[in-house]
Amino acid sequence: MQHRMENVLGLLLPSADIAPLHLHQAMRYAILGGGKRVRALLAHAAGELCGADPDKVDAAAAAVELIHAYSLVHDDLPCMDDDDLRRGKPSCHRQFDEATALLAGDALQSLAFQVLAQPALCDSAARQLEMVHLLAIASGSRGMAGGQAIDLASTGLALCQEELEFMHVHKTGALIRASALLGAYCAPDADQAKVRALDRYAKCIGLAFQVVDDILDTQADTATLGKTAGKDAERSKPTYVTILGLSRARSFTQELHADALESIAPFGSAGQRLVELAAFITQRKF
Amino acid sequence: MQHRMENVLGLLLPSADIAPLHLHQAMRYAILGGGKRVRALLAHAAGELCGADPDKVDAAAAAVELIHAYSLVHDDLPCMDDDDLRRGKPSCHRQFDEATALLAGDALQSLAFQVLAQPALCDSAARQLEMVHLLAIASGSRGMAGGQAIDLASTGLALCQEELEFMHVHKTGALIRASALLGAYCAPDADQAKVRALDRYAKCIGLAFQVVDDILDTQADTATLGKTAGKDAERSKPTYVTILGLSRARSFTQELHADALESIAPFGSAGQRLVELAAFITQRKF
Repeated sequence: MQHRMENVLGLLLPSADIAPLHLHQAMRYAILGGGKRVRALLAHAAGELCGADPDKVDAAAAAVELIHAYSLVHDDLPCMDDDDLRRGKPSCHRQFDEATALLAGDALQSLAFQVLAQPALCDSAARQLEMVHLLAIASGSRGMAGGQAIDLASTGLALCQEELEFMHVHKTGALIRASALLGAYCAPDADQAKVRALDRYAKCIGLAFQVVDDILDTQADTATLGKTAGKDAERSKPTYVTILGLSRARSFTQELHADALESIAPFGSAGQRLVELAAFITQRKF
Repeated sequence: MQHRMENVLGLLLPSADIAPLHLHQAMRYAILGGGKRVRALLAHAAGELCGADPDKVDAAAAAVELIHAYSLVHDDLPCMDDDDLRRGKPSCHRQFDEATALLAGDALQSLAFQVLAQPALCDSAARQLEMVHLLAIASGSRGMAGGQAIDLASTGLALCQEELEFMHVHKTGALIRASALLGAYCAPDADQAKVRALDRYAKCIGLAFQVVDDILDTQADTATLGKTAGKDAERSKPTYVTILGLSRARSFTQELHADALESIAPFGSAGQRLVELAAFITQRKF
């Protein structure tokens, strides 16, 4: 599936020999050749549960990956996390320059909406419009961008678990939930019970993803992570490990994993890929 | 109309007392309380020509103003134009901070697509989806963001008039054309001859707007402009004044003005607001 998404994204992005060259090279650099593609995998697994044509899910999956990639490019900028490394390579502004990285992020966001609004992605134009609306809300000030603002404001503060969860529900959770819902809405007639189950599943694995991220940040080394390890502690950022301790953070991951599986259990083997994805997310080492 | 847009935008933007407060304050700061609203005026004038309901045009006009506002916030950042002043006030990153300005710009872009994809803006969901697609292309790497990349790359270079025009056609022209087309598409059945005429009109006034900008940058003072005057020369940026000289730049503005008027002449009084807008753009002093 990672390979499939690489092809899909490679075709959707403007070629690196189309003007403005530098910008297109930076956009391709930022999104191709790496990444776990969790959001794309989730869109496809959700689409499969609901009976969507995988060819139609491709565009929705690409749209969420484009939003995710733009957020990483901007998040790595000096005025934000100031990170030199991303997916084992120099971050976009280190490979190019700050202004190019800023514009590449901006253009990746536009491209996400262009891809999701392309003609006849979905059998119903009205539903496709709802998908665009949903992605915009998930990306904006009450979703991902808002979560990043809360994250910035919380550096150096002693948050409680509830406040930390509020931040992550926005910063990463909103786009992860949108990935599942967009995959489901690619089906001609997505069953409401399945959509509700997917929403709960995505909330749980989205949060589990973050808890595992916090654990890995304290445990793994930079080479394994492909991004700078130990960064959170260095910047006095509150994490699940600082708030719960390592052992309780691990058991919290297990609880979230179990909740995610419970929500999709009624659908049996149709949810097999969602089961595999939950296992991947909670057991990953990078 | 400026007053109407201020109200529309004020209602569409998240309130400054909704979390994350700082981000919402920065978004409101960046877009409310100023600006010529040329893009909104154009959307409304184009909508009127095609018989659109002004209440429906409001959302399309807001969407283009949101994209424009986000581009100004990012354009003023230190890694881009590094400008301290915008619309007579401290630029967003000076009033808040760089990270907040970056996120506010990002979230304003998301909000533009959210507003344009909101349910039942248009009688036809399929046409509304085309509008989203059009705005995304106009904003992205082959439109506005691409034009900014070309602008960055051209600083210090001796461009010819053709290259300068290529840059402006992307940097400002794409969004100005989109404003006219989006206004037109709000009409239940926009006449193709009118759409073609509007496209030509918008190309001409978009370019005229830029030529006048270049003239004003050399002539007016910072207090009148509300942004730093003389900036282009200081940075060795190619402009219409440096390439054509002041006198030919002025006559070029007149030619573009005449072309714009000619394209809408067949529609008589239905194009009255477009005539007024063209006069405002070519004769403005700020």
